[in-house]
Amino acid sequence: MTVRHFLNTTDYSRAEIDALLEQAAEFKRSPQGQQLAGKAIALLFFNPSMRTRTSFEIGAFQLGGHAVVLAPGKDAWPIEFEVGTVMDGDTEEHIAEVARVLSRYVDLIAVRAFPKFQDWQVDRQDKVLKAFAQYATVPVINMETITHPCQELAHALAMKEHLGDLQNKKYVLTWTYHPKPLNTAVANSALLIATKMGMDVTLLCPTPEYILDERYMDFAAQNAKENGGSLQVSHDIEAAYSGAHVVYAKSWGALPYFGRWEQEKAIRDAHKHFIVDEAKMALTDNGLFSHCLPLRRNIKATDAVMDSPACIAVDEAENRLHVQKAVMASLMSQPGVKSGLGF
Amino acid sequence: MTVRHFLNTTDYSRAEIDALLEQAAEFKRSPQGQQLAGKAIALLFFNPSMRTRTSFEIGAFQLGGHAVVLAPGKDAWPIEFEVGTVMDGDTEEHIAEVARVLSRYVDLIAVRAFPKFQDWQVDRQDKVLKAFAQYATVPVINMETITHPCQELAHALAMKEHLGDLQNKKYVLTWTYHPKPLNTAVANSALLIATKMGMDVTLLCPTPEYILDERYMDFAAQNAKENGGSLQVSHDIEAAYSGAHVVYAKSWGALPYFGRWEQEKAIRDAHKHFIVDEAKMALTDNGLFSHCLPLRRNIKATDAVMDSPACIAVDEAENRLHVQKAVMASLMSQPGVKSGLGF
Amino acid sequence: MTVRHFLNTTDYSRAEIDALLEQAAEFKRSPQGQQLAGKAIALLFFNPSMRTRTSFEIGAFQLGGHAVVLAPGKDAWPIEFEVGTVMDGDTEEHIAEVARVLSRYVDLIAVRAFPKFQDWQVDRQDKVLKAFAQYATVPVINMETITHPCQELAHALAMKEHLGDLQNKKYVLTWTYHPKPLNTAVANSALLIATKMGMDVTLLCPTPEYILDERYMDFAAQNAKENGGSLQVSHDIEAAYSGAHVVYAKSWGALPYFGRWEQEKAIRDAHKHFIVDEAKMALTDNGLFSHCLPLRRNIKATDAVMDSPACIAVDEAENRLHVQKAVMASLMSQPGVKSGLGF
Repeated sequence: MTVRHFLNTTDYSRAEIDALLEQAAEFKRSPQGQQLAGKAIALLFFNPSMRTRTSFEIGAFQLGGHAVVLAPGKDAWPIEFEVGTVMDGDTEEHIAEVARVLSRYVDLIAVRAFPKFQDWQVDRQDKVLKAFAQYATVPVINMETITHPCQELAHALAMKEHLGDLQNKKYVLTWTYHPKPLNTAVANSALLIATKMGMDVTLLCPTPEYILDERYMDFAAQNAKENGGSLQVSHDIEAAYSGAHVVYAKSWGALPYFGRWEQEKAIRDAHKHFIVDEAKMALTDNGLFSHCLPLRRNIKATDAVMDSPACIAVDEAENRLHVQKAVMASLMSQPGVKSGLGF
Repeated sequence: MTVRHFLNTTDYSRAEIDALLEQAAEFKRSPQGQQLAGKAIALLFFNPSMRTRTSFEIGAFQLGGHAVVLAPGKDAWPIEFEVGTVMDGDTEEHIAEVARVLSRYVDLIAVRAFPKFQDWQVDRQDKVLKAFAQYATVPVINMETITHPCQELAHALAMKEHLGDLQNKKYVLTWTYHPKPLNTAVANSALLIATKMGMDVTLLCPTPEYILDERYMDFAAQNAKENGGSLQVSHDIEAAYSGAHVVYAKSWGALPYFGRWEQEKAIRDAHKHFIVDEAKMALTDNGLFSHCLPLRRNIKATDAVMDSPACIAVDEAENRLHVQKAVMASLMSQPGVKSGLGF
Repeated sequence: MTVRHFLNTTDYSRAEIDALLEQAAEFKRSPQGQQLAGKAIALLFFNPSMRTRTSFEIGAFQLGGHAVVLAPGKDAWPIEFEVGTVMDGDTEEHIAEVARVLSRYVDLIAVRAFPKFQDWQVDRQDKVLKAFAQYATVPVINMETITHPCQELAHALAMKEHLGDLQNKKYVLTWTYHPKPLNTAVANSALLIATKMGMDVTLLCPTPEYILDERYMDFAAQNAKENGGSLQVSHDIEAAYSGAHVVYAKSWGALPYFGRWEQEKAIRDAHKHFIVDEAKMALTDNGLFSHCLPLRRNIKATDAVMDSPACIAVDEAENRLHVQKAVMASLMSQPGVKSGLGF
């Protein structure tokens, strides 16, 4: 009997995604429930978090459950993820034990594990998340690794709230400057969800080196095909913004430069003008602006854009709470998942 | 529609303070309630805490709510508080987004943010707390910044429990030695609440340089006038202690030495004899002793004083729980504050 | 009126231990309860934790209570444990205040405080735990100091689940290699509980220097005498494993080398062959294997042993949840312990 996880939206059909969004909208109208009564979720953070941690913790509480927040390597033991290792290094226990023991204590396990940014061929294997899914006997939730599917749902819900039907709406994912090379997770996820919703999607980035991993480009192209939308890449700011209904901003490090970021710096520094500002937004069709947050103001987007009515980033952030409750409730309702603790 | 916060007791009338103290005493007799049923409070700690965190977290639980504990810059993203900044430094997101997003998740936001001790002219603006109050759409609670109003209520309640009516009781706030220059927050607050209760207050400190910021000296003088008490400054230990009903101890750094503490060290070191000991307490009118804790024993007060029946510091600490529940319940009962999550 | 704590199983009769194990088994069958309804427990971690923290936090939740997790010196103030100290060093408050104040906020206090590994004569006094027990006015629970009584109960329950009656079953506690010198707590505890259950116990270790503190050797010998079991020391791997029903592995630093670990290293390094592997397990009487976790795979035990059906380490870890709920419920049911908060 296989437990279903929430690792990537690519594992979920369009109908299943729509059902999660409907449940999330219902939780937004009526937040209290008993779907997790007496249940517990472990939130494992290998990286910092504000929104994710708060929204999961409160979401569990509102549904009658309890979230335990763990930071392995900080207030818990460092974990080994390789198989067969002679563990004479820094790690004190193996994921096999961690996942199995946690599965005895809790009903759901959620994991945040960012890439190491040394070697994309390693990072793209998503080992930490996959190891949890492999060894855990309870459902596992992706709280951002190399994709960020919870953000996808929150983003889609916010767009639907403001635009209604998303079919063939023009969507631009624009790269923006940031002083550090960042994770591609949200960028990958933006392409996945926008194409899944049947939007006409443009990936706007400085050079071809900033195109995302082919795995996600291919998934997105397939999504577009299946859902009647489209996917294109552009390096032309004006063309990309023109007539857009949604501009979604994100900074990320170019994949070919993983592990030699000093060489990428010159390229990034040369494209600070990708900042989302009023002039660019004026090219859109009264377009909405959003971002997953945290956002550096006046680096990724100007104060004027952030404080304008077009900015729905805070709505999107709020939706994290509602969509994650829908995900937790959905995973707990699987037949075969332990019926909880005495319930 | 403006939300009311709990930033300073100066924003609350004497009658309102009395009502909070009465509600706190009621919670002390009967701790369980449903005033926060289904609600959440975010506790943001920019500095360490034991009592504050524990008492808020348990207080929320006892009233049916849930507290989320966040440490920005440690397990959450570092926050920018200046307006209009080009955020190319260490901060990853702006208070505008932090406060707005948290306001979507929680019903109350509580903030601890100590001064930076570099420049009092900057610290005295209390920017972090004010920024939260400005951008949040839910009530904000001060968990100690440059004042400590929750401590004020706990202190007042402990004094009333032991002395009954506080009107014109003799109150001494004495500076004491500590190896480091500490925050003036509790000292400011001690003056504010003792004068608000109509007590005859003496600020005892080594030299005029240790007199508190004129803002709080002025507020205290006005409180004294309005409530039939008095306020004076003394550098004479024996005179100050003589006939006192309450001795409250606190160490703080002298304001003129902010940012050049090595120069203040000699003065502090020369006044270690300000320690509260049995000889000094013998000068009082069977006086009570208290302190906000944490307290270095045999530095600020002797073991003999701390372990004597006159010491009510633990009662005061306990009262943190009760008064904070009163504050949370009061803030949540405002018309216009979101009625929570489905209730 | 004295409050009873849970500091060591040596303070509990065999009948009392059996009653706790029965209650734990009952909680395992039926996890939800109201034994801690409205109550709070403070979990103080001076060292990292995954299982302990998660199982206590969830255990409290399942019984209607709430756990507050504190890490003194990290997110709370550093604590002084010596009496009469002039506190001019790093510590900011005395255990007397910490324990007394926490006792006003919570109904139970649990403490994890590992040895400092500098001087066993100091560490063996277990000062931190004893200080909490001395000053607190609520029950105190040992979450691992120089013994680990919660692990003892979980271990005993797991053995009973798999073997039924433990009387005169052959039990081997084997030292294993680990790159660092570790705490003797679990080793001490293994001897205490196995002898308490009337088992025939062998302590297998490289040299006489690895024999445990005489306090625990004496307690174990007395337990064996009272409960019809036996206790012996062996340095012969083959003899010790032969016919064993249970093999329990743990690494620890040799007591004579406390504070001069570089000298012990050569001895440890020479005994890596103490690893628990299939060849050794084949010598047993179809024996079970367990470990307290965290465990370094292929250092303390091989993958083959860890992944074999003989390994009950995950069952033992799960039992932490159940036994700790039994301990908390038992301590709260004492006459004289405060009846909680309004209940």
